Amino acid sequence: MKLNIALLAGDGIGPEVIDQAVKVCNAVAVKFNHEINWTPALTGSAAIDACGEPYPDETHEICVNADAVLFGAIGHPKYDNDPSAKVRPEQGLLKMRKKLGLFANVRPTFTFPSLIDNSPLKRERIEGTDLVFLRELTGGIYFGEKGRRDDGETAFDNCVYTRAEVQRLAKKGFELAMTRSKKLCCVDKANVLETSRLWRETVQAMENEYPEVTVSYEFVDAVAMRLVQWPNSYDVLITENLFGDILTDEASVISGSMGLMPSASVGEKTSLYEPIHGSYPQATGLDIANPLATILSAAMMFEDAFGLTQEAEAIKNVVNKSLVEGIVTEDLSGKNKAYKTSEVGDWLAKNI
Amino acid sequence: MKLNIALLAGDGIGPEVIDQAVKVCNAVAVKFNHEINWTPALTGSAAIDACGEPYPDETHEICVNADAVLFGAIGHPKYDNDPSAKVRPEQGLLKMRKKLGLFANVRPTFTFPSLIDNSPLKRERIEGTDLVFLRELTGGIYFGEKGRRDDGETAFDNCVYTRAEVQRLAKKGFELAMTRSKKLCCVDKANVLETSRLWRETVQAMENEYPEVTVSYEFVDAVAMRLVQWPNSYDVLITENLFGDILTDEASVISGSMGLMPSASVGEKTSLYEPIHGSYPQATGLDIANPLATILSAAMMFEDAFGLTQEAEAIKNVVNKSLVEGIVTEDLSGKNKAYKTSEVGDWLAKNI
Ligand SMILES: CC(C)[C@H](C(=O)O)[C@@H](O)C(=O)O
Ligand SMILES: CC(C)[C@H](C(=O)O)[C@@H](O)C(=O)O
Repeated sequence: MKLNIALLAGDGIGPEVIDQAVKVCNAVAVKFNHEINWTPALTGSAAIDACGEPYPDETHEICVNADAVLFGAIGHPKYDNDPSAKVRPEQGLLKMRKKLGLFANVRPTFTFPSLIDNSPLKRERIEGTDLVFLRELTGGIYFGEKGRRDDGETAFDNCVYTRAEVQRLAKKGFELAMTRSKKLCCVDKANVLETSRLWRETVQAMENEYPEVTVSYEFVDAVAMRLVQWPNSYDVLITENLFGDILTDEASVISGSMGLMPSASVGEKTSLYEPIHGSYPQATGLDIANPLATILSAAMMFEDAFGLTQEAEAIKNVVNKSLVEGIVTEDLSGKNKAYKTSEVGDWLAKNI
Repeated sequence: MKLNIALLAGDGIGPEVIDQAVKVCNAVAVKFNHEINWTPALTGSAAIDACGEPYPDETHEICVNADAVLFGAIGHPKYDNDPSAKVRPEQGLLKMRKKLGLFANVRPTFTFPSLIDNSPLKRERIEGTDLVFLRELTGGIYFGEKGRRDDGETAFDNCVYTRAEVQRLAKKGFELAMTRSKKLCCVDKANVLETSRLWRETVQAMENEYPEVTVSYEFVDAVAMRLVQWPNSYDVLITENLFGDILTDEASVISGSMGLMPSASVGEKTSLYEPIHGSYPQATGLDIANPLATILSAAMMFEDAFGLTQEAEAIKNVVNKSLVEGIVTEDLSGKNKAYKTSEVGDWLAKNI
């Protein structure tokens, strides 16, 4: 197969971890006889420095024309405490999501048996945890009208959802639930918010199209509790943009393997694959960042974007092998030898 | 001292746990020579049943004229999955907060050494945790304009904050930090939301009035993670209404003593004290609910509303004693004898 992949390394450790994913994907291509055509493009702070824009039009063109996008991380500390900065790397991320129509952020949370003791939670609470969040990614308060009035003394952000947006995301949720344990949880705040009431009534109306799926409705505050108490009681969860932002990050801590968690942002045409971790500025250039989340995101890409299940399995297997054999970066090495980012990438590529 | 306290038992287990708090407060009054005048009033589902209104005007009058309000819990399952219900108990809660001007929800999270192993988190992660959230309670998306357009196909909720609202809450945060370890964390989403940028810039502008306080600014998604990873790295946290709803509930799980966590909702004139747990409908009338959160809320009331520190200490001490001696309800009794709600209340009142 010929695979055209846009490569958005981004900021901070982005380029380093992306390099390792490229090595591993290229090894997969050799083994399974594919041809990968990588097209790099600028985003984030790197793009602002180059052309004043965090998601330049050239980058968008490259993404639109690719079969899939592999993404590193964006964000730079120089923008963090300057709420008034005119251009911020995050705007690039939001613009990219909107322009590419990446409406569903898919975020699995699962445990690696060999790493389970890294979790802040007790083993018996997390064993067997295997859940997936579907976060709506192009609507809600992120994209509603926002601004100031009264000479800047009053600020507002509008949260807006249409029934069609909810249906589109919920449909993916029902479909995903059908391939798993047929349990779907709709997370909202329907006791307070009108948008949440639209979410709930829309999902309720879809229930009879999927009679095998058991749907529960929980308030976002209750889920924030139960996620820490009994994460293994959840399977597929669907939710709106802001709730998803908060809850998926909370969920990422559960397994103790945050540095390993992949994600996909899925659109009607293009989809993007990225680690859930950030740009980790302090580690930039040190060759110490854990590349596994990006590499596992590449596995998701093989499986979901190209339907190449064997290739995805090959990556997951070699990652597991590296964990068992201790070929890991310093965040996971404990008292044993810590490998460099690039060494882990080399080892994985060689062992595919 | 003469103490006029409005008593809002509410729904579910509310009346049962409130009864125990009244017993304990009355014992405190006898011991320290105070006179408590309790005035009961209806709220929540109980008030809807009685007069069609979850926060009736009579109840408001009683609260306004009281020195403090002691509150149980509201909420009834018959309203939960009916997003279109015209009147809901929660509306009473929101109306009460707004009309009484309860702008700051104070939510401590601390550990009880004797209960620390109940936590889903590992002991070494939570030992020493002692943090307080100040959640803004009368603004934000809870109270902004909300509704439908396009024949009901589009829903919206507006999030609005004024600088004055932020200052009022932040001032309490700085003051509280000054009485504690002088560390304040402002939780926002300033990389996306305009209201968050107003929060951040307002708090930043107040920093020089409190030169001893070290202020940090963190994004809500990052806090949702770090709360589970290193709760003991936080002290005082301030945040807006919706973020506070989610994060305070998440935080309540940390100590493993959720059923014991008190809270205060503070206004310029009146303040209200309530357990953080809900109305726990399944346990209604069974005399099994844990009354300690309500009783510890009464301790907060003695201390904060009346400046009666000794009285508050007496309550906290007797609660600790009951934990050590195992005079506890079934949620805490493990393999030992479980006491009834009313038995725990009686024991505490007797041992004050
Ligand atoms: C950087 C930020 C705008 C972004 C978001 O809030 O969506 C990030 O937190 C994420 O979850 O991808
Ligand atoms: C019942 C609900 C309206 C309320 C809220 O969201 O404020 C509750 O969750 C709380 O935190 O007191």
